[in-house]
Amino acid sequence: MINQVTAPDNTRDRIILAGLRLFAAKGYQSTSIVDLLQEADAHSGSFYHFFPTKQDLLLAVLKTYRDGIEPMLLAPAWDGILDPIAKVFALLAVYRRALENSGCTYGCPIGSLALELHEPDPPVRELLSVNFYGWVNHIRACLDAAGGRLPRSVNTEQLAVFVLTTMEGGVMQARTHRSLSAFDASVASLKDYFDRLEATAREESP
Amino acid sequence: MINQVTAPDNTRDRIILAGLRLFAAKGYQSTSIVDLLQEADAHSGSFYHFFPTKQDLLLAVLKTYRDGIEPMLLAPAWDGILDPIAKVFALLAVYRRALENSGCTYGCPIGSLALELHEPDPPVRELLSVNFYGWVNHIRACLDAAGGRLPRSVNTEQLAVFVLTTMEGGVMQARTHRSLSAFDASVASLKDYFDRLEATAREESP
Repeated sequence: MINQVTAPDNTRDRIILAGLRLFAAKGYQSTSIVDLLQEADAHSGSFYHFFPTKQDLLLAVLKTYRDGIEPMLLAPAWDGILDPIAKVFALLAVYRRALENSGCTYGCPIGSLALELHEPDPPVRELLSVNFYGWVNHIRACLDAAGGRLPRSVNTEQLAVFVLTTMEGGVMQARTHRSLSAFDASVASLKDYFDRLEATAREESP
Repeated sequence: MINQVTAPDNTRDRIILAGLRLFAAKGYQSTSIVDLLQEADAHSGSFYHFFPTKQDLLLAVLKTYRDGIEPMLLAPAWDGILDPIAKVFALLAVYRRALENSGCTYGCPIGSLALELHEPDPPVRELLSVNFYGWVNHIRACLDAAGGRLPRSVNTEQLAVFVLTTMEGGVMQARTHRSLSAFDASVASLKDYFDRLEATAREESP
């Protein structure tokens, strides 16, 4: 979901940016070192100086997503939006635009890597996990900020996980069908669920 | 989700079963022809006689899932269950057991293949798509059978897609975290949504 970055000056950052782009577009296993060198305009000597293996680059890419979630994903998604529940749906709309702009081939790079790598080495799996937890924690903060607009019985951590589930399941089907309709159906159902939760909270309020 | 099959007598079926097992366990790209020959106890001559390429086997595997959804997935999941909404959650419970029995490494083989293959050839993508549509259509039939237990405003196709979204998004996170909790959180949220829909339908009924 990080599209705004322009080519950095230093070689290490250019290689990481190449990894961000190519792992998301082609997949990790289909991306060769030669592909990465061409995309980064780098030589193999500098590549292996910074990243002894392709997996070392993958770890750096996953750390970039982890550290970049606020400046690169959330800040642009939430620019000018104060309502915490509107923020949840504004973030989902970012993924819809990514699907729309790519002919439904590009959605969530973390989700793609999570299922492409069937048995990822532990440090890779942990960083995928950390990225999911980071995303969920930011949504949970929105839900906590919504306060009395949600029923008292709502578990905001559970609901935040469900928002990520909706995004990832919707992206998976949209990519497979090459159509936005399953993504839209999923978000519309989630929105209906939120509307019902808000209606219950209004009944609870004194 | 097809675990019940025992080794068939004929070589072609043994190779397809090997594909079912290994593509789900290791991924498509990580499974070699040698792996398949060993698993199927077959010789390369017979393999290439039936399947000129590994992709031809993948197509046969995806057709087996498509054609096997009723006998191999739904019939065991719904054995003895008549309530159409209980069927929806009984099917989700099958995926939970698959995660539980595999230490959260195995969930839905179609979802895994859908995201592993970033740019699948058109016949592969179409069969992945057909498998998703088949699953959704069976859930939609349950929701249609539930009739007046859901509000009149509910679009059963949209809601059926959302059930698949819940399963796939929950499986993805469970596999990544190696923990059932995100799957359980997703299904619990979906159940709460269904409970609210049923409550609305009760208010609508005369």
